Amino acid sequence: MDGPDHKGLIFTVTKVLYEYHQNIIRNDEYVSPSGYFFMRTEFEGIIDPEIVLNALKESLPKGLRLRLKSDKKKDIVVMVTREHYCVAELLVRYAFDELGANIKAVIGNYNTLRSLVEKFNIPYYHVSHEGLTREQHEEKILSILLRYQPEFVVLAKYMRILSPEFVRHFPEKIVNIHHSFLPAFIGANPYRQAYDRGVKIIGATAHFVNENLDEGPIIAQDVKRVSHRHSATEMAKLGRDIEKSVLSEALKLVFSDRVFISGNRTIIL
Amino acid sequence: MDGPDHKGLIFTVTKVLYEYHQNIIRNDEYVSPSGYFFMRTEFEGIIDPEIVLNALKESLPKGLRLRLKSDKKKDIVVMVTREHYCVAELLVRYAFDELGANIKAVIGNYNTLRSLVEKFNIPYYHVSHEGLTREQHEEKILSILLRYQPEFVVLAKYMRILSPEFVRHFPEKIVNIHHSFLPAFIGANPYRQAYDRGVKIIGATAHFVNENLDEGPIIAQDVKRVSHRHSATEMAKLGRDIEKSVLSEALKLVFSDRVFISGNRTIIL
Amino acid sequence: MDGPDHKGLIFTVTKVLYEYHQNIIRNDEYVSPSGYFFMRTEFEGIIDPEIVLNALKESLPKGLRLRLKSDKKKDIVVMVTREHYCVAELLVRYAFDELGANIKAVIGNYNTLRSLVEKFNIPYYHVSHEGLTREQHEEKILSILLRYQPEFVVLAKYMRILSPEFVRHFPEKIVNIHHSFLPAFIGANPYRQAYDRGVKIIGATAHFVNENLDEGPIIAQDVKRVSHRHSATEMAKLGRDIEKSVLSEALKLVFSDRVFISGNRTIIL
Amino acid sequence: MDGPDHKGLIFTVTKVLYEYHQNIIRNDEYVSPSGYFFMRTEFEGIIDPEIVLNALKESLPKGLRLRLKSDKKKDIVVMVTREHYCVAELLVRYAFDELGANIKAVIGNYNTLRSLVEKFNIPYYHVSHEGLTREQHEEKILSILLRYQPEFVVLAKYMRILSPEFVRHFPEKIVNIHHSFLPAFIGANPYRQAYDRGVKIIGATAHFVNENLDEGPIIAQDVKRVSHRHSATEMAKLGRDIEKSVLSEALKLVFSDRVFISGNRTIIL
Repeated sequence: MDGPDHKGLIFTVTKVLYEYHQNIIRNDEYVSPSGYFFMRTEFEGIIDPEIVLNALKESLPKGLRLRLKSDKKKDIVVMVTREHYCVAELLVRYAFDELGANIKAVIGNYNTLRSLVEKFNIPYYHVSHEGLTREQHEEKILSILLRYQPEFVVLAKYMRILSPEFVRHFPEKIVNIHHSFLPAFIGANPYRQAYDRGVKIIGATAHFVNENLDEGPIIAQDVKRVSHRHSATEMAKLGRDIEKSVLSEALKLVFSDRVFISGNRTIIL
Repeated sequence: MDGPDHKGLIFTVTKVLYEYHQNIIRNDEYVSPSGYFFMRTEFEGIIDPEIVLNALKESLPKGLRLRLKSDKKKDIVVMVTREHYCVAELLVRYAFDELGANIKAVIGNYNTLRSLVEKFNIPYYHVSHEGLTREQHEEKILSILLRYQPEFVVLAKYMRILSPEFVRHFPEKIVNIHHSFLPAFIGANPYRQAYDRGVKIIGATAHFVNENLDEGPIIAQDVKRVSHRHSATEMAKLGRDIEKSVLSEALKLVFSDRVFISGNRTIIL
Repeated sequence: MDGPDHKGLIFTVTKVLYEYHQNIIRNDEYVSPSGYFFMRTEFEGIIDPEIVLNALKESLPKGLRLRLKSDKKKDIVVMVTREHYCVAELLVRYAFDELGANIKAVIGNYNTLRSLVEKFNIPYYHVSHEGLTREQHEEKILSILLRYQPEFVVLAKYMRILSPEFVRHFPEKIVNIHHSFLPAFIGANPYRQAYDRGVKIIGATAHFVNENLDEGPIIAQDVKRVSHRHSATEMAKLGRDIEKSVLSEALKLVFSDRVFISGNRTIIL
Repeated sequence: MDGPDHKGLIFTVTKVLYEYHQNIIRNDEYVSPSGYFFMRTEFEGIIDPEIVLNALKESLPKGLRLRLKSDKKKDIVVMVTREHYCVAELLVRYAFDELGANIKAVIGNYNTLRSLVEKFNIPYYHVSHEGLTREQHEEKILSILLRYQPEFVVLAKYMRILSPEFVRHFPEKIVNIHHSFLPAFIGANPYRQAYDRGVKIIGATAHFVNENLDEGPIIAQDVKRVSHRHSATEMAKLGRDIEKSVLSEALKLVFSDRVFISGNRTIIL
């Protein structure tokens, strides 16, 4: 649940759960400095959770948003360009039922990754951007996405910029992996930039995409040490391992409903 | 609070706090697999917290242990041998009011660190072990400790083994820094052992001391990378920085009443 | 090259390379405390490297071992049990020409991973251990291995103990991934052990297999932080990501001829 | 040594060392993409190193810069404002002969740290900036610095911007600790910026100061994980530990002559 903070919110929730004979397994809450309340409660009992949810809704002040985490896996569509390592990680996890999501389709603006994706019996759509305006290209992608109605769109090294219009179709629903430790090295060629700046640590960032490129709420980040011996190319290679593990970690959190968005920050409960 | 788990504990606590017009700032709880309940609640309001505590005690099942975190700093005594870096860290933090504790005295089995300690206007007791049995030596230390009645005893590179009898005087009250990533390299010369084993990462462990040497509940650990180029001596030097930062981190948690003990594990809320 | 240390070894090598108009790109050497010399030199020039190698051999003292790193990829066989994540990582890297090795075959004592392996067009051999003595089982595996003559055998979560007799067939040629931060938690169920000990950091270790289980030279290690909230099962899940990335990192070093063995330690140049 | 790359440089150095009966203990070299050569050689023998140095100079092409690392500790002056933790770390290391440098004096634009510094018997100069132009203030500082002729000036949380004119007096000789993972969060209040951006990792950077603020060559960096629970203030507190350990690590490298500068990058040999 999240919404404007009120006195007694935790009390009210625990009271309802107690009255409905639910056992609280874990409870995490956070109140932002601006007075917004976030809480994630794991509970178990023999009563239908929908009934408990309704009781909670009736007892709590209006304006609070309550959601029941379902055990149903999220439906997702993955978008790629030519790099395989992030999507391969997702495909393997999906194949062994570790992703917490169903990959309904993969869309690529190149055809490079078709054979990998089809090994895992997932439809691959090649939507080339060549000869198309951005608008035309995105419209084609959109028509595929709308067919699948995904709960999340994962940009697994999709290397083209999405227009604000496109993003608006999926508010807080697009997860991207950015090949730098944001906000350092925003923009193109971050490993080249990192090499030129002589940093001793490189990183990657998984974030929600909003209308401002590279500036959406950060979900997960990780880093590795480099030295002067790493060329920009070697940094990029090393960076791949960070990128795929950071994307995996972020998706694990997102798909288990543990990520809340508060302005430009994520609250992970 | 901690104690055997019961249904409705969180509800009862939040109910009392609500009735006493307390605002919950943060609430963390944990139930161990063996059914033991731990909870730390930060709340604020205008009523005397002692009154709230009593109300909580009356409402909660017997067998639960409740403590009120006071703002009073903990009184501690630090024990050392000859290495300066851990105690120096504590002295500097204390001097700038960052330790969350009052260092009442430092006891050393050598006199090496007297001048450092006295720079900070803290009494230094040199209790040499030479010519004494362990029992006699510990008795001398004990007589100083009992004079100060410290809430915690910090072993900041105190390199002698304490007898179970000594430890029994300070149950869950002695914090030690161990120069290895426990449980690897228990015993003497851990950096030598680490070198011989050819590990690529070394570490340090802060833990409570119980009657079994090196086996008390772990509070904090950290690690650093090493390579074949590090000799055992260089590993030891590098290890010092880990040791002092791990000890600091552990003490920060302990002195702010965030560490609970559950068998041989710590619960940090 | 490696061998007993002598004065002037670096001079002799650089002299020969200079005379043969080779340009040194990178040169790393290490002399162990016991007086053993290790050096890896990257050089380039227009003369056939075999000729340069011979010239080096003639100029250097007897007893030094020289090898020319070939650009040829190593032939390897991978052994598995039922867990997919390490072998999947290797298969994907191989498919995209990033492994530095050719996976000639995968041998499993279960049939679980056949479908994954065959997606990548690699032969899968199911050699069940059921009803066989260790000797009989290993003989069957050995007959497959000998057919492929692999330069390295990679144990990618092969969960059975290999006999010293088996290991002796592949001296310094078997790489294993161990699911703990060795030497902590040697033996069975390391994540269970880690949970019980209450550690705050878990890890994984890639090492060469020698005749003493879990005690061969360590190639790479990595760690992640855990808290009291992680059950043993959750630690194991988190550990998988460490295991696969540590195994990858170790193999990258091994397959590029950067790993030397010095007693029970690796020298990585 | 460093300078434009030539064929045979390593050969020439090892030849001279061989002829002068020097034993090479360690040798690291690096050639930058722009063709600049860097090498650090540790050698030992019974001949006066100055004689060996002269022989090397005669054998090597003009344009190469050779320096002999002396065992003499560097003379340094430390500049501070009001925060104690970095200078305290340096004072303690110096007091126990672990710094590799002599702290000749500390200059502060506040008087806050006088008592700490004087505990360690080091002169403290309070040079207030109040009522002075930047030029006047820097001139006063400069007059003190020139008296001590330090080999390095360490900015240990000196919170004022130095003018290019001031910096030009100490080319490649001023080391600063910056409270962010550069180049992220350049400028004021980096922890506030980090909080607002919602990063999951914070860091610190030790770098040489050049005429462009925050943009000199990076020597060392490190990071720690944070979560949404950390306020900007708590990030700043946590950041202090990173800052002091990163500054220490950087100075250890600098004072042992292991840091070369190549444009805006450091080469650490």
